[in-house]
Amino acid sequence: MTRLEQQLSFILEMDKEKTIRRQTRCTDGHMENDAEHAWHIALACLVLSEYANEKIDVSKTIAMLLIHDVVEIEAGDTYAYDEQNQKTAHEREYKACEHLFSLLPEDQMLFFKNLWLEFEKNETDEAKFAHAMDNLLPILLNDYDDGHMWKKNDVPLSKILKRQEKTKMGSTVLYEYVLSLLKKNIEKNNIKEDCEIHD
Amino acid sequence: MTRLEQQLSFILEMDKEKTIRRQTRCTDGHMENDAEHAWHIALACLVLSEYANEKIDVSKTIAMLLIHDVVEIEAGDTYAYDEQNQKTAHEREYKACEHLFSLLPEDQMLFFKNLWLEFEKNETDEAKFAHAMDNLLPILLNDYDDGHMWKKNDVPLSKILKRQEKTKMGSTVLYEYVLSLLKKNIEKNNIKEDCEIHD
Repeated sequence: MTRLEQQLSFILEMDKEKTIRRQTRCTDGHMENDAEHAWHIALACLVLSEYANEKIDVSKTIAMLLIHDVVEIEAGDTYAYDEQNQKTAHEREYKACEHLFSLLPEDQMLFFKNLWLEFEKNETDEAKFAHAMDNLLPILLNDYDDGHMWKKNDVPLSKILKRQEKTKMGSTVLYEYVLSLLKKNIEKNNIKEDCEIHD
Repeated sequence: MTRLEQQLSFILEMDKEKTIRRQTRCTDGHMENDAEHAWHIALACLVLSEYANEKIDVSKTIAMLLIHDVVEIEAGDTYAYDEQNQKTAHEREYKACEHLFSLLPEDQMLFFKNLWLEFEKNETDEAKFAHAMDNLLPILLNDYDDGHMWKKNDVPLSKILKRQEKTKMGSTVLYEYVLSLLKKNIEKNNIKEDCEIHD
């Protein structure tokens, strides 16, 4: 295969991202897939980057967001509040990362693998803000939907807050906004209040 | 509304992009929507930018691709080979652009509006390569699908070639590859050969 053929076979394989269902409903009620989600948070990053705790490289963060979930083509989506499957998610996803990016020429394989690992490690300012986007959007959509998936999956406040720690690491401004949405949804009995919110 | 509230209301409105159906089938057979498409071509741009005829600003091109179709939330998708509706598409889309981006704070409204207009005018190297991505991906998916939508809509070669002129403006290398796929699909009787291909 030529370099171009390798790249195009990778791009075609990526098409499967459009079939991976998440546990979030879109505003019209359909269950979101990974490609829709990745597009939405990349766009959100373009709009909200001014709220990052530290000045970030927006382009790098967007590249990270575009590929952060492609491993789920082989590893499947792991629901944020499924603690059992979360334990094995990283290992399954790492294997998928090794395999999927190896469709690319070596230089690009390394570029994407490192970008994905940077997201996973969540140590750089870009990775932290990428996680803030990844965690903020489902809250916005759940809030719009009157907490449908929170109620359906009986998700308690403590689990949501634990997850939203990553939003705080990326953006305290957006984290504060998330807290205001959570308070509203607790009042509406959309979220089970099993702990307190400390601002 | 605060600045942040304006931005979040825009991001929530953008969710509707996930409901705009296109005339392309994904590899699993479902009809692609605009959000999936925008994600796919933004990722393709990240992988294929080396083939741009001129050196491009990849980040700017990706930003353009992320928002190039959002106007269809209000203007609807216009099929590439629907000549009647193509005539009125720009006017409808311009109105939608004015309205949708006005949800944002003024500085961002101007940024996105100019980015969208740059794509539409198709004069800069970034806009040209963005169009190459926008036109290449449906060819890849149609070829994968044994020309299903070409056959269903009875699309003749002349119309496909006219559309692919934009791919050539952005990347002659990718245009040559498109021609090889078109020749293959003519041989398989997936495309009606109503004119000749001149390399």
